[in-house]
Amino acid sequence: MQNNVGKCIETLRNVQQKSPLVHSITNSVVTNITANILLAAGASPLMAHEPEELEEIVAISQALVINIGTLDKKQIESMELAMEYAKKMNIPTVLDPVGAGASKLRTETALNLIEKGKPAIIRGNSSEILALANAGIGQSRGVDAKDSVEASQEIAKNLAKKYDTVVSVSGEFDFITDGIHSAIVHANINENEVKLPLPVISKITGMGCSCTALNGACLAVQNSKEDYFIAAITAMAMMKSAQVKACEKADGPGSLEMYILDNLYNLKAEEISCYIQFKE
Amino acid sequence: MQNNVGKCIETLRNVQQKSPLVHSITNSVVTNITANILLAAGASPLMAHEPEELEEIVAISQALVINIGTLDKKQIESMELAMEYAKKMNIPTVLDPVGAGASKLRTETALNLIEKGKPAIIRGNSSEILALANAGIGQSRGVDAKDSVEASQEIAKNLAKKYDTVVSVSGEFDFITDGIHSAIVHANINENEVKLPLPVISKITGMGCSCTALNGACLAVQNSKEDYFIAAITAMAMMKSAQVKACEKADGPGSLEMYILDNLYNLKAEEISCYIQFKE
Amino acid sequence: MQNNVGKCIETLRNVQQKSPLVHSITNSVVTNITANILLAAGASPLMAHEPEELEEIVAISQALVINIGTLDKKQIESMELAMEYAKKMNIPTVLDPVGAGASKLRTETALNLIEKGKPAIIRGNSSEILALANAGIGQSRGVDAKDSVEASQEIAKNLAKKYDTVVSVSGEFDFITDGIHSAIVHANINENEVKLPLPVISKITGMGCSCTALNGACLAVQNSKEDYFIAAITAMAMMKSAQVKACEKADGPGSLEMYILDNLYNLKAEEISCYIQFKE
Repeated sequence: MQNNVGKCIETLRNVQQKSPLVHSITNSVVTNITANILLAAGASPLMAHEPEELEEIVAISQALVINIGTLDKKQIESMELAMEYAKKMNIPTVLDPVGAGASKLRTETALNLIEKGKPAIIRGNSSEILALANAGIGQSRGVDAKDSVEASQEIAKNLAKKYDTVVSVSGEFDFITDGIHSAIVHANINENEVKLPLPVISKITGMGCSCTALNGACLAVQNSKEDYFIAAITAMAMMKSAQVKACEKADGPGSLEMYILDNLYNLKAEEISCYIQFKE
Repeated sequence: MQNNVGKCIETLRNVQQKSPLVHSITNSVVTNITANILLAAGASPLMAHEPEELEEIVAISQALVINIGTLDKKQIESMELAMEYAKKMNIPTVLDPVGAGASKLRTETALNLIEKGKPAIIRGNSSEILALANAGIGQSRGVDAKDSVEASQEIAKNLAKKYDTVVSVSGEFDFITDGIHSAIVHANINENEVKLPLPVISKITGMGCSCTALNGACLAVQNSKEDYFIAAITAMAMMKSAQVKACEKADGPGSLEMYILDNLYNLKAEEISCYIQFKE
Repeated sequence: MQNNVGKCIETLRNVQQKSPLVHSITNSVVTNITANILLAAGASPLMAHEPEELEEIVAISQALVINIGTLDKKQIESMELAMEYAKKMNIPTVLDPVGAGASKLRTETALNLIEKGKPAIIRGNSSEILALANAGIGQSRGVDAKDSVEASQEIAKNLAKKYDTVVSVSGEFDFITDGIHSAIVHANINENEVKLPLPVISKITGMGCSCTALNGACLAVQNSKEDYFIAAITAMAMMKSAQVKACEKADGPGSLEMYILDNLYNLKAEEISCYIQFKE
């Protein structure tokens, strides 16, 4: 356990020191905040989607971030191609299946990218993760967002096992699993002590997408597949730390976003440990 | 009158409590601020433009926001299709004819979307609204931005009548009309009392587009066509309140944008009444 | 010299007073900050890329900004067409060759736009400018980013001469040359006196792209080709001033961006002179 928290701290230090190049193909709402979050965390963002240059761009990157939030046919082509190159070059990918369940196209695109592109991490909110799990098992017996926390965690574990990947589910707390091991990232705070209640974080667009981008930054500095689980935990703890401290000062979502960026930039690696709890 | 102000307050309360899903197809400059403004106001933003998923996305939304600010041929297709689905499903649309008059394509696209898509509200600045009115009457006798305030208001009324819609014209104050009734939303402030002069608001990109998005949020909670006029007034008063109070603290456009988001989040429904004046 | 600094001050005053319309076709990460920077500086931003309307849009603009940061085939078509119209109408263009050297497509697109579109200013970081210079001389003897400052400046001068343009290279300080004359824009500050170290500026996305946009604003108010060099210097000094003063107050990249926008809005024209040093 202690050892694992130590690995998370080391992962964050590596992001800050090595400034890995993270290539994103993401949705049009969050391009700017994604790049700013990556920069504040110490990474180097790069966005490119033209098929003709993808092989060269993937080759100079240390991780790939794929987010289907405003997908269209042309962008899906770019995403498939980038993930194919990344798989060939052993560059880890994190996939954010934004809106899976909201349209057939989103659910199917996400599953297709998972099956062909073999992402290192799938990061979404619980309804997106459930949509992927339900789609996988057909119409027979679905789960829904009202299922118990335990049931949802079991579903995430099964999804991780099925696709040999790490699954990160965000919600009131974040649940991260590689199918065998699992961990929780939680706010670790008395809500009465903060100036702004934590749920206001959901009033800033792109907070989930920014977590996904940080997953990319943490993946980029790992040397082996075994540490992708650690990368996923580290990313969520970085964001949680920046967010919780921002709630101590902010008056609303505008100032909250500003403080989150400032806090992420000023984050000391050891500070993330209090937000992480390994489960087994 | 008093009754109508009460309806505006109720509209805002409904946005804050029901958190309606607002689907936007908007310009590439303002996607992020549009989503953040909607979230701060209490609504849930969603952006999607791929034709294949539009029917499903429109079906789960409570309002549609269409903004032609960075239009292209593919996006026009998406906008036409989304408005067609929205019309069929009785989901109200607000259209922002950004740049109407600056190019034939913009003027014609806006008119085409109005004629086929039957928006509940058309919201633009006075030069855009005049461009639509002039185009409608051909080359014979146009009006221009230098025409008197009264003449401009008459034009807005005629446009509203012609297309059986609500027209909202922003400027030094906002003029909203359904062709019969009209109202004004004004800053209600002594400019000398604010730290930053109100015109600095125009130094933040997307403020008009954000107003349009708020029109969508207010449309989303109305039950009948009669209340679309109320929705249009409420949206402008929400933004006016957030802006005026932001000018009391901000030092420039950067901090102004931050305070506007914070203020919108903290807005109490009754506060909007002092900015609204029904005319007849 | 003094005369030249005076011309820079006059250029900035003209931007603030004339509020020129600056048309940008830029990358999807920086659309919003580009527009906000232009507005804060006193200019009027306009974004449009649909080929059908480009002739009309270019015709009403006073300058064109082209930035290839997230290029694709369709966008390249729009850029070529816009630059062609601008050249015909004598509207000056600034080109930002973002990522030149990172992919063949970027290097070739940048060179192609330079050769056909004859930009008034090429503004990039040193690795991008070196990539253009190297590509121009083939594979024979390239230069790289590790070459001495003097060698890099010589390369920028040669590039400016070759294409009869102004080249602006940003880095620790900015070097601007028309091939004959040159100038430096530097921070002019004791780093120990600022709250936040100046390199944190690089932790905000789009700062380079924003400089490029300001080059467009300054180009827009010049009357003759001889003053494009002055425009390029003025733009960099405006940004430098806003950035240096922001570092006196900010706690991280989030607040830094906010202060830069506020400072740009509040900038007095004379303040830029201390950041400018003409070389010969």
